[in-house]
Amino acid sequence: MIPDTTATLLVTCPDRPGLVAALSQALYQHGVNILDADQHTDTVAGKFFQRIRFDLARGPNDPQPGSMASGEIDRSDLERTVAEVASRNAMSWSLRYGADIKRVAIFVSKTDHCLYDLLLRHRAGELRCEIPLIVSNHEKLAEVATQFGIPYHVFPITKENKIAQEEEEIALLQRESIDLVVLARYMQILSADFISQFESRIINIHHSFLPAFAGGRPYQQAYDRGVKRVGATAHYATGDLDEGPIVEQDVIQVSHRDSPADLIRKGRDVERSVLSRAVRWHLEDRLLVYDNKTVVFA
Amino acid sequence: MIPDTTATLLVTCPDRPGLVAALSQALYQHGVNILDADQHTDTVAGKFFQRIRFDLARGPNDPQPGSMASGEIDRSDLERTVAEVASRNAMSWSLRYGADIKRVAIFVSKTDHCLYDLLLRHRAGELRCEIPLIVSNHEKLAEVATQFGIPYHVFPITKENKIAQEEEEIALLQRESIDLVVLARYMQILSADFISQFESRIINIHHSFLPAFAGGRPYQQAYDRGVKRVGATAHYATGDLDEGPIVEQDVIQVSHRDSPADLIRKGRDVERSVLSRAVRWHLEDRLLVYDNKTVVFA
Amino acid sequence: MIPDTTATLLVTCPDRPGLVAALSQALYQHGVNILDADQHTDTVAGKFFQRIRFDLARGPNDPQPGSMASGEIDRSDLERTVAEVASRNAMSWSLRYGADIKRVAIFVSKTDHCLYDLLLRHRAGELRCEIPLIVSNHEKLAEVATQFGIPYHVFPITKENKIAQEEEEIALLQRESIDLVVLARYMQILSADFISQFESRIINIHHSFLPAFAGGRPYQQAYDRGVKRVGATAHYATGDLDEGPIVEQDVIQVSHRDSPADLIRKGRDVERSVLSRAVRWHLEDRLLVYDNKTVVFA
Amino acid sequence: MIPDTTATLLVTCPDRPGLVAALSQALYQHGVNILDADQHTDTVAGKFFQRIRFDLARGPNDPQPGSMASGEIDRSDLERTVAEVASRNAMSWSLRYGADIKRVAIFVSKTDHCLYDLLLRHRAGELRCEIPLIVSNHEKLAEVATQFGIPYHVFPITKENKIAQEEEEIALLQRESIDLVVLARYMQILSADFISQFESRIINIHHSFLPAFAGGRPYQQAYDRGVKRVGATAHYATGDLDEGPIVEQDVIQVSHRDSPADLIRKGRDVERSVLSRAVRWHLEDRLLVYDNKTVVFA
Repeated sequence: MIPDTTATLLVTCPDRPGLVAALSQALYQHGVNILDADQHTDTVAGKFFQRIRFDLARGPNDPQPGSMASGEIDRSDLERTVAEVASRNAMSWSLRYGADIKRVAIFVSKTDHCLYDLLLRHRAGELRCEIPLIVSNHEKLAEVATQFGIPYHVFPITKENKIAQEEEEIALLQRESIDLVVLARYMQILSADFISQFESRIINIHHSFLPAFAGGRPYQQAYDRGVKRVGATAHYATGDLDEGPIVEQDVIQVSHRDSPADLIRKGRDVERSVLSRAVRWHLEDRLLVYDNKTVVFA
Repeated sequence: MIPDTTATLLVTCPDRPGLVAALSQALYQHGVNILDADQHTDTVAGKFFQRIRFDLARGPNDPQPGSMASGEIDRSDLERTVAEVASRNAMSWSLRYGADIKRVAIFVSKTDHCLYDLLLRHRAGELRCEIPLIVSNHEKLAEVATQFGIPYHVFPITKENKIAQEEEEIALLQRESIDLVVLARYMQILSADFISQFESRIINIHHSFLPAFAGGRPYQQAYDRGVKRVGATAHYATGDLDEGPIVEQDVIQVSHRDSPADLIRKGRDVERSVLSRAVRWHLEDRLLVYDNKTVVFA
Repeated sequence: MIPDTTATLLVTCPDRPGLVAALSQALYQHGVNILDADQHTDTVAGKFFQRIRFDLARGPNDPQPGSMASGEIDRSDLERTVAEVASRNAMSWSLRYGADIKRVAIFVSKTDHCLYDLLLRHRAGELRCEIPLIVSNHEKLAEVATQFGIPYHVFPITKENKIAQEEEEIALLQRESIDLVVLARYMQILSADFISQFESRIINIHHSFLPAFAGGRPYQQAYDRGVKRVGATAHYATGDLDEGPIVEQDVIQVSHRDSPADLIRKGRDVERSVLSRAVRWHLEDRLLVYDNKTVVFA
Repeated sequence: MIPDTTATLLVTCPDRPGLVAALSQALYQHGVNILDADQHTDTVAGKFFQRIRFDLARGPNDPQPGSMASGEIDRSDLERTVAEVASRNAMSWSLRYGADIKRVAIFVSKTDHCLYDLLLRHRAGELRCEIPLIVSNHEKLAEVATQFGIPYHVFPITKENKIAQEEEEIALLQRESIDLVVLARYMQILSADFISQFESRIINIHHSFLPAFAGGRPYQQAYDRGVKRVGATAHYATGDLDEGPIVEQDVIQVSHRDSPADLIRKGRDVERSVLSRAVRWHLEDRLLVYDNKTVVFA
């Protein structure tokens, strides 16, 4: 793999004139080359959002005169500059380096289609991350983990042991420096405490077109209602079950011929594609959360 | 237009062996030619559904030997035969003749996109029906009706006059022998009494992907929730608002860039296509209702 | 798995009155229960097509009086009856029994996404078949075959050895009683002789929306043309490369931001879903071929 | 309508570092507020593209200190600044003002669905433009023009008079200061000379998924090939028929049940939505053309 010398800056702040100029000027003065810049203003909320992806590598022919030798830009210099612009404009910001590969933990229960899909896309190079561990409350999918050479950690959850088990899970995630938790059809409700420690870093796939059919057995609910499309929704987990910020959703056509089992079968395809897009966008720093919504710079 | 000599038989009954054979045999003995036959068994509910479209016209070279001269089959003979098969099998059935063009009343308020869409599709030959009248609670769209040469009846509705006005509307619909009422963004709730007189003959378009965002201002609700798709749902009206049997639904992609006004704009396209499909299927006798669901022989 | 006592009859013949009645009557007299019947008349070509799926099992409470004891219907009796109806009506027909599980050979080269997709769907119960072997012209995907416990046969193809290698492949397929060959991104052109031995039994996935971008490197062709959707097409292989009867196709949105590599990535998802649908339909006897087109009773 | 004080800058140039900073800085120094900035780098072609939409209005509380009073920014000052940045960076650029409403001529023949769609969307406020004239080679759609109060100009075209008629058409377009010509199912081929006078300002809708089924009768071609999707393509007209830069395209599902007439009916819906999106994007200055492709900042 080519060494990744890019970085991605995500900012949110109250809207005001000059924000685009201030940021691009600050970056330019460091000699970085902007590869992609995407920006959004929510005029209702009066908020400004921007994603800037740029290259930290400079060659000898760099058109930026003098000051610095070729090679990579100094991270702390760069961050100091961004912090200055940010403080003048009340910006929240994050700066992520392409060289710092994110570490992902996948949580599953007994259903394997989302797990396989993520592992295969990862192997195909679609998801730029490491997957150092899979967590489950069941033994069942251990074999899949083995096939892909990934450690599989089983934490059976009962009413009684839930708090203790979650504490161990959190400890494991921290020990492994996990950046993102993907709930790939994990059939346990995480506690508010767990979620708060990974705010905007847990992506869940819900097997319905939210807010329709929140809660359990959504395909059966959809069947009973007689809908003509079933869907899936990827969202960041929050304390309110199925109420977190939606990242992506989609639907597929169904008909009176489809039994509940058919809805489950058709829904799997939507779950796969919706979840994998959401995970990819998170890994590529394309997502910003505000007001329980997401900005997706896709 | 070529004279339409087809007829369509729709049946529903408890499932049992021999139903397909019994019906096709009965029709064959009358010398009709089956053009389309579509069938569905709901194994959960134990119910059988069939749609048979056939041609009543017979020519001199009809392969059916002897018994009848060429020309069209006698309707009452045919209906007697179907009734016999039906009574032996506890069938509900309806038999509609292509020569009997259905008569449609369109109800609107102030929004014209669904109205225009239906009128243009009608003119283009996509909807086989007559549209002898448009009903509204506002004057606003009278001009559209004029353009298409269709009488426009205004019934302003208030809390006080609602019952009386609905009675006049019903009288008008009966006088005009209306077969189908299309609520093409009609912003009044029909009374249970009105609906009961046109059971499974009122199609409403709701501007959300039901059951998500039932009730008022669905696009604003969708915006507030931060969904990534907005939808529309065509359903038969029942006494429970937005709870009737769903005929068709679809969605369109939206993003954080879309304001509530953008959702309304994008949603219009989905409303149009969803409503027009539902109306066309009804007009072509492709719809059966049971258990608050629909079978769509599309 | 529940023993499958269903059978599926597919017929094609010149259109004439009474076909539906003749077939359903013949089946009914054998005491079978029709589960699904779908029918199509091509009025331009004057051709009639029907798919009838029925249950061969009869219980003691069978409503059909007397003649036969409970248990399964005799296959040769049934086939004799169908043959009689067929000969009276110039029908081509095939009768397949659910109990006779089809045997599928998957051909691959170096690309694994379609292979994995088929194997996972098979394991999930979406594809009712056996997959006794995988054929490739490369070693590369042997490991995938091993994971799923399927024999992997390598036939390296060169200009010189092509005819000999194909003969060995055909011998293998015959020895293994293969019913269907799936070219799951197999990057070799089969000879006309090979194809003729498996007429309408080889499904290929072409990675473009045919007839656009036939031939090699279709994603690069699509990139060069600047299209806004890329697609995939599953078709039966014929002697004319990329010209065989289309079974299924679909597209996905792309934009100026997508490099050729992005088109390949996005296209994989379409290839997977298009190919798997085509294979499932074939396995469920939902496909009929005529005039280089397909009838899909989906 | 609120006075539109926005402007949109579109630029194309060889890629090099500092372009985003240079442009945003230049605009910022004029005190404009950037509302939207979208940018793309084609790394293969080494080209940079940007669309910046900004507000020219400044209020008394403008954060930009001193130099200018409140009110609108001076156009010629602004353009001089942009021209300077452009000349330093070998940029092609265009600057369009929201206050300058574009003027659109719609060309039609006998088919009215795209014409109606554009006129209704225009009336609904979806298309920000004036439509001062409709051109046709037939009388047939004059009545539609009348309904919407738009002058309808008939230029019957024959082999003999084509050059002369086109000259009159061009004169009319120039007299009416037409910015964009929309070929809304106009069944005449424009001469290379006509097209060259409106380069990248003529949008045509072709009723197939190009490059499949270029040329005449594409739905019949699609029917004959047995495709499972039909499509439509909006593209800028060039001297090579159906070979111009694609702006938008989409498809709709069809089946063996669809006759050529059904393909035409289903295709109308795709044509409408594809053409209207392309026209809207052009009107909103979201399109850039290069290498016979388009960049769509949608």
